[in-house]
Amino acid sequence: MAPQATSPDTDLDALVAFANELADASGKVILPYFRAGTLVDNKEDGRKFDPVTAADREAERVIRERIETVYPGHGIIGEELGSKPGERFTWILDPIDGTRSFITGLPLWGTLIGLLDGDTPVVGMMDQPYTQERFIGTAAASHLICKGTATRLTASDTVSLDQAKLAATHPDMFRPGDEADAFARLQSVARMTRFGGDCYLYAMLAAGQIDLVVEAGMNTYDIAGLVCVIEGAGGVITTWDGGPAHPGGRMVAAANQTLHQKALDVLNARC
Amino acid sequence: MAPQATSPDTDLDALVAFANELADASGKVILPYFRAGTLVDNKEDGRKFDPVTAADREAERVIRERIETVYPGHGIIGEELGSKPGERFTWILDPIDGTRSFITGLPLWGTLIGLLDGDTPVVGMMDQPYTQERFIGTAAASHLICKGTATRLTASDTVSLDQAKLAATHPDMFRPGDEADAFARLQSVARMTRFGGDCYLYAMLAAGQIDLVVEAGMNTYDIAGLVCVIEGAGGVITTWDGGPAHPGGRMVAAANQTLHQKALDVLNARC
Repeated sequence: MAPQATSPDTDLDALVAFANELADASGKVILPYFRAGTLVDNKEDGRKFDPVTAADREAERVIRERIETVYPGHGIIGEELGSKPGERFTWILDPIDGTRSFITGLPLWGTLIGLLDGDTPVVGMMDQPYTQERFIGTAAASHLICKGTATRLTASDTVSLDQAKLAATHPDMFRPGDEADAFARLQSVARMTRFGGDCYLYAMLAAGQIDLVVEAGMNTYDIAGLVCVIEGAGGVITTWDGGPAHPGGRMVAAANQTLHQKALDVLNARC
Repeated sequence: MAPQATSPDTDLDALVAFANELADASGKVILPYFRAGTLVDNKEDGRKFDPVTAADREAERVIRERIETVYPGHGIIGEELGSKPGERFTWILDPIDGTRSFITGLPLWGTLIGLLDGDTPVVGMMDQPYTQERFIGTAAASHLICKGTATRLTASDTVSLDQAKLAATHPDMFRPGDEADAFARLQSVARMTRFGGDCYLYAMLAAGQIDLVVEAGMNTYDIAGLVCVIEGAGGVITTWDGGPAHPGGRMVAAANQTLHQKALDVLNARC
């Protein structure tokens, strides 16, 4: 649910515009590191450093500084630089979600920016600066902004598991045993499975291209920025036990309520 | 080895320029189908049709017509529309390599155009029209052309398996038993494994971002267009038994000769 626009500080349009500013700033920081060497000598102290970590930290610093300047009362939870408590609103940040994509040159990583009003996600953003695609969602709607053109996103109307395109970032993300078995059950009934993609998979679910994304071991910063992108497109995302997604855990994102329930049933089936 | 430039018909620069024309034409045909619905009513006869197949066929038809007009003596091998024998040169075409990427909205599919002089690959191209990236290779060099800017490609100098980033399109491409076991052995010694990516993985190997691509079950049209892209960047590609890659089969692409030999040793180890 969107907060009421009662003051400039709680005006949702202003907060979305601000999220766009944050992504503009982080993209400028991150892009020069993409497809640079993956392990490079640090000229200052002779040690090796990891560009993906450098880009991640530098981008988070830039985003946090901007938030602290414009909205000093807001809380911040960042992957790299920790948490700062706030009053009503909290920003949840992952400047580079998809480290494996990033270090293999694949443009499927993204910058995740989520905003909670109390405990409710109200703005979500996934920004891919290399392809110049930005996915933005609120409770009202989700859009893809690509090179200045906005396209309304609508998740698919696939309701049958045997028609569903299922995706996950990597088979190894599921713990051997019940968790891996549950994913394997779903895989065996889905139309196809695609591995690899990180946050981009959830964006493609919002865009109607993927029907199910099922993952495990997610942190709040891996998912909070994606909740509104998915829900604003008509999709549904919860944990495997049906709880709210934004705190993290094991995720089921589906194109619609019907497919979501069918996926939950398969994941939670007791044989 | 590049053919000598003895006549306009065998001038390598002219053939590269012609391959660029072919990719320009195919990209225009394919792009409108990308992220369109994946199963759409055909208005003419009420049946469902599959946009990826439609795009694939239409693009191959456009490419073949252009080859037949300009180089009527050249042979053609295409994924969708079969083979036509020729005299000295043969074009090997896969308008959409990476069907799974295409139908899930991920911009990792590509148009593969390879040219053989006799049985020797002399031009290779992977074109990704959505990201506007074109990877072109000859025996002399490989380049990425992105929005008018050409960048010389150089594969990585990683020679240690435990530093190598390994990639493959999908775990299911390896037949259970010896083939899957061989890949698992390599996976267990590599720094990391990334699944998902099709032809884009080989392009990222040429770009120095991925160190090893190991796959199985490849057809000639899946790989012939990539051989010169890899070799022109200093990479090495053969089958698992060290034979030429362009006819297809099980592939080992490596960033350099040292790493290639180490990967072959692990794949072919008898326990």
